[in-house]
Amino acid sequence: MIFALDAMGGDHGPSEVCKGAIEACKEHSDLEIILVGKSGEIEPALDEAPGEIVRRISVVHSEEQIGMDEHPSAALRKKRGSSLRMAMEMVRSGEAEGCVSAGNTGAIVAGGVLVVGRIAGIDRPALGVALPTLNKYTFLLDVGATVRNRPINLYQFALMGNVYSKKILGVAEPEVALLSNGSEDIKGDETVAAARELIKNSGLNFTGYVEGDDIPYSRADVVVADGFTGNVTLKFAEGLMSAVYSLLKEEMGNRILPKVGMLFMIPMMKDLWARFNYEKHGGTPLLGVRGTVVKAHGRSKAPAIANALRVARSFVIQNGVGVIREELE
Amino acid sequence: MIFALDAMGGDHGPSEVCKGAIEACKEHSDLEIILVGKSGEIEPALDEAPGEIVRRISVVHSEEQIGMDEHPSAALRKKRGSSLRMAMEMVRSGEAEGCVSAGNTGAIVAGGVLVVGRIAGIDRPALGVALPTLNKYTFLLDVGATVRNRPINLYQFALMGNVYSKKILGVAEPEVALLSNGSEDIKGDETVAAARELIKNSGLNFTGYVEGDDIPYSRADVVVADGFTGNVTLKFAEGLMSAVYSLLKEEMGNRILPKVGMLFMIPMMKDLWARFNYEKHGGTPLLGVRGTVVKAHGRSKAPAIANALRVARSFVIQNGVGVIREELE
Repeated sequence: MIFALDAMGGDHGPSEVCKGAIEACKEHSDLEIILVGKSGEIEPALDEAPGEIVRRISVVHSEEQIGMDEHPSAALRKKRGSSLRMAMEMVRSGEAEGCVSAGNTGAIVAGGVLVVGRIAGIDRPALGVALPTLNKYTFLLDVGATVRNRPINLYQFALMGNVYSKKILGVAEPEVALLSNGSEDIKGDETVAAARELIKNSGLNFTGYVEGDDIPYSRADVVVADGFTGNVTLKFAEGLMSAVYSLLKEEMGNRILPKVGMLFMIPMMKDLWARFNYEKHGGTPLLGVRGTVVKAHGRSKAPAIANALRVARSFVIQNGVGVIREELE
Repeated sequence: MIFALDAMGGDHGPSEVCKGAIEACKEHSDLEIILVGKSGEIEPALDEAPGEIVRRISVVHSEEQIGMDEHPSAALRKKRGSSLRMAMEMVRSGEAEGCVSAGNTGAIVAGGVLVVGRIAGIDRPALGVALPTLNKYTFLLDVGATVRNRPINLYQFALMGNVYSKKILGVAEPEVALLSNGSEDIKGDETVAAARELIKNSGLNFTGYVEGDDIPYSRADVVVADGFTGNVTLKFAEGLMSAVYSLLKEEMGNRILPKVGMLFMIPMMKDLWARFNYEKHGGTPLLGVRGTVVKAHGRSKAPAIANALRVARSFVIQNGVGVIREELE
């Protein structure tokens, strides 16, 4: 299974991306990776890897890259030789089964639309994340592909979220809900209210509005939000859990008695935090495009890159693109 | 100090609101409360209270009430005899120093605008919350007064948040930031981007965009958001902390070894959770109106009602309305 990996994307540079590629190849013997980027920076990062791994990794040189602060679609159009665009082209041509990038989110989404192409029936793609919640996973979309949305976009997200939950996450009859600022029908702005009417008449198992606190309490299988609100919510969750964890550690350091307790508590805390460590779950498939495109967190270090490759591999194995096309086209 | 308290607001009915009033009066001997609502339901709830307290509580009968699912401004206009409207009228007439309600948020906001009146220079009011974050409090506004906002509204929220942080929370030179889906200038939708330009040129100590995870990490003193996003974020935080807490307790119950640790950990965990228990901090002043109007959480039980009265009292003592008027009018 061949994936194109944008070696220049993300905050930590090609060496960290390469390490992630090596890690993923060690774990999955069926994985082959095309690293796209500055070969002079990529090749040294592969020097230490065992020959069996390096044989499955190829390097395609690209001179350009798209910065995190560039205007997404303009950069994608102009920089035809950028690592991201080249990785996307490999998906379109079939040279790669999918691509992974920790780069500029907007450019990844624009590449999904302009290079890989949309699925018929989808106007704008969405990024979705399976959030660990009280007693299951809740699929939240969009978490940042489309900044502000029209009602029809939210409606299409609901359709895609429903398919993803059913076919990929294995939920029999997913409860689909719409994120709002209150549960009553009078809540929501015009866009959200209009989307509610569309989704209500869609035949989905739609439960209406949910509020922010309904997400951690697992009160829906699929939660639909505009990309702005979804993004803020996801990042807030990451930050909150991580801040509380560091506060707990600090507190433990400050108290003598709890240190005894700490010996016993650490394994439990670690388990729990692993469950709520949203950053580890980074690696989100772009839904609504005709190929496997996985966006890794901009701050991804090697383990997160490896995880994004794992997500891409599962998405291909589960025929993620196919199941969405089947239901929607 | 006399406050009008909407006895009919909130999910738990007048008896819970009355208990909250009694609790607050016990704590503050300078407090007098006018309970507005169905006298037949209020009076029995006061039967058990000591005479010294009951002397400071009066009841004003109102026949109507505004439901949680009614259209806010229409209900406020039509139901002139509703408990909420009557409480607001008492603020306007000066009969009460301020009012508190756990009722329909939209109706409270509409009442603030239509009955109490706006401060000159403010088009729409905002609800703000001082969120406990890593090493301080971050003032987040709007958390739900105005559902979607124009750039000018976000700009005015920034001005009010700055005053609140400086004068009420005592931050010398508050760092003011705008919540967005990324830190780069290309992020944000049109409204947020236009608000950024307005705030940048305002003379505030403006640090640009912050992302969701910057809030728990205390990366700004004031975070400005539209009411929809702010509301979802606040409620998500409440839900997440509460879900994690119940998971931790459950985990502790399931393991034998950690029970030993638990004896030592419990006090620490309780401290930490009290800090992050956002619901306890419920009771948020409506900023931008010419009187003290405090909104309590719809799910408020007696302690939360008492806390909202405490917030109202502090807001009056700190001259909250006055300091905002001075800076903005």
